[in-house]
Amino acid sequence: MRVSPGQTLRELRERKPLVHQITNYVVMNETANATLALGALPVMAHAPQEVEEMAAVAGALVLNIGTLSEHWIEAMLLAGKAAGGPIVLDPVGAGATRYRTETAKQLLDELDVAVVRGNPAEIATLAGREAEIRGVESIGAADSGAKLASTASRMLGTVAAVTGATDYISDGERVIAVSNGHELLGTVSGTGCMSTAVTGAFLAAKPEEPLEAAAEALVAFGVAGEDAARDAKGPGTFHATLYDALYNLDPATLDERARVEE
Amino acid sequence: MRVSPGQTLRELRERKPLVHQITNYVVMNETANATLALGALPVMAHAPQEVEEMAAVAGALVLNIGTLSEHWIEAMLLAGKAAGGPIVLDPVGAGATRYRTETAKQLLDELDVAVVRGNPAEIATLAGREAEIRGVESIGAADSGAKLASTASRMLGTVAAVTGATDYISDGERVIAVSNGHELLGTVSGTGCMSTAVTGAFLAAKPEEPLEAAAEALVAFGVAGEDAARDAKGPGTFHATLYDALYNLDPATLDERARVEE
Amino acid sequence: MRVSPGQTLRELRERKPLVHQITNYVVMNETANATLALGALPVMAHAPQEVEEMAAVAGALVLNIGTLSEHWIEAMLLAGKAAGGPIVLDPVGAGATRYRTETAKQLLDELDVAVVRGNPAEIATLAGREAEIRGVESIGAADSGAKLASTASRMLGTVAAVTGATDYISDGERVIAVSNGHELLGTVSGTGCMSTAVTGAFLAAKPEEPLEAAAEALVAFGVAGEDAARDAKGPGTFHATLYDALYNLDPATLDERARVEE
Repeated sequence: MRVSPGQTLRELRERKPLVHQITNYVVMNETANATLALGALPVMAHAPQEVEEMAAVAGALVLNIGTLSEHWIEAMLLAGKAAGGPIVLDPVGAGATRYRTETAKQLLDELDVAVVRGNPAEIATLAGREAEIRGVESIGAADSGAKLASTASRMLGTVAAVTGATDYISDGERVIAVSNGHELLGTVSGTGCMSTAVTGAFLAAKPEEPLEAAAEALVAFGVAGEDAARDAKGPGTFHATLYDALYNLDPATLDERARVEE
Repeated sequence: MRVSPGQTLRELRERKPLVHQITNYVVMNETANATLALGALPVMAHAPQEVEEMAAVAGALVLNIGTLSEHWIEAMLLAGKAAGGPIVLDPVGAGATRYRTETAKQLLDELDVAVVRGNPAEIATLAGREAEIRGVESIGAADSGAKLASTASRMLGTVAAVTGATDYISDGERVIAVSNGHELLGTVSGTGCMSTAVTGAFLAAKPEEPLEAAAEALVAFGVAGEDAARDAKGPGTFHATLYDALYNLDPATLDERARVEE
Repeated sequence: MRVSPGQTLRELRERKPLVHQITNYVVMNETANATLALGALPVMAHAPQEVEEMAAVAGALVLNIGTLSEHWIEAMLLAGKAAGGPIVLDPVGAGATRYRTETAKQLLDELDVAVVRGNPAEIATLAGREAEIRGVESIGAADSGAKLASTASRMLGTVAAVTGATDYISDGERVIAVSNGHELLGTVSGTGCMSTAVTGAFLAAKPEEPLEAAAEALVAFGVAGEDAARDAKGPGTFHATLYDALYNLDPATLDERARVEE
């Protein structure tokens, strides 16, 4: 029960789990490429005719409500009920419209979600706390990150990962803080969604320990962000070097680079 | 009533307006990232259940018909009628199929569009002039750009921005010519759509002066293109450095770099 | 009837054929940009109201089932029946779910497909051979690539292009082997789909010789991959330099760089 991102990454790259993603149009290419660069196998499928078959054989299922519509919600529910591995939910924009808030709650109610990963305002909305949000960007939440994560975890019955400058991951009892990352991550649209896809990949490699897997995923993604920033001159070159960094992540040094507190 | 892109960019970055975009699948990631790199907040939402709520609070609404279908047109009309800020229309491929031409005209008829931004063939089609088009690429229009922009503006009752090597922006009386830009912009799919998103962001910062805001947006985007070309070896690296350049745009030098004639 | 990628690329760039693509959400931007960087004109359109009109005037039609749903299949059938140029099919994930396998077979049955381009597992599935697949990634096929290509070609009544470290292209009688390419192509999601789009562009330039055109397309794409790898540090920078390389492909040296055997 300890955080060892290097070991989990090593196992992930050996097993190459299939990560089934029903996600938004804006970031599909980005999350597929992040998953592949990390060392897992992405697959996107949303038709009711095939989602159950795909979800049943996948190592993890990632649901993301960033560009929602009725057919996609139906597909998420079908896939979620047939999922053979853990489910990760990214409630993009919960709090920004009623439709998103209600859909995120419905998915949490009807499915056995292992991890919900969001920004403070999204998680606060789902946990019934106060938050400020504009569009899909979080402006802030009244609670501290640690308290928000543990409260949300207990209320929602999942591991809650609240990401920001420091990420807080909680199973309701323990809270793990991860301080890896780089501010350029906030300048590229979809990096939050990528971190959710990476969380799915880590959960597929370590399904029995969702708290540790989610924290390890955020360490790995954060370290990749740090590496990517070194060669970047702005959001565009950073976006490109981020995939390089995920691909070149070294399991042997990942544990010592982890900035984790519990 | 003068063109001052530096000042408007400064205000835009301070206010961080929300730019609601109902756009095509091909460029969603690109226009979101261009908006974010510039300093505004993009949000994509197209479900009838939420577009009105989102459009009502957004600083601007960008509609783009690049990959059209019935549900999306309905969403555009709903959002457009509920919009709390100015509307920018990108009539991608108008003239290429009857469906696109008619949809663009319907949106112009039923909504209070502030600016229409397109290539010469698209704008000529909407203004009832002769033009040659293949797919969504403009081959040319019979009128000169300046005349086309002013004619289209008067006929369509909006500011018309006709973009090319030189961009012409008109409110029917005045015509502003913007010569910033770089030929590599023509080698990346979606740069036209990005310039429309940037136009939306500038309009959100300066809604009461759509002619100036549209011209300033095209100056800013063109200058970013010039900067991006410096480090690029082709369309792929240019695509990456274009976001860097939008992010690194310096308001202090933007006015003197503007190549504007009226 | 010989493979001369340089000459075909020269003609393609002169004619700038319109390549109509009905493809998956994940790679739309990527295939549009690959088509444009190569020198052809991409257009994406999937609405039943316009696909026939668009397909009728396009130089080639590319169908890709990577993110399938009912409306999109209907659009592919409508477009395919109205197509004015050759049709290329990319059966992404055939074998991974029944829905994809059956849809790929339906498209092959009902449309006059000129070339089917896929990985060994996808093509083996369609040809009724044994194969192993996970998600949309091919793990392997029991037959050798050359035998698989010729068998599939005869059974499906199309040119079959089976891509991998070495690509095998067959019309049922002849088999052309192409060994250009780079292993980094396997680290970016959608490079297979890009190679299908490039195949569409070459077929538009040389519609009467689909075997040669398909082989030439894979030479050109492979050589671009080799060039792109030179400046890349991983999947992200490779993705960017791949467009540069397609744009900078030199027709004068392409034939001598071709690693082709028949």
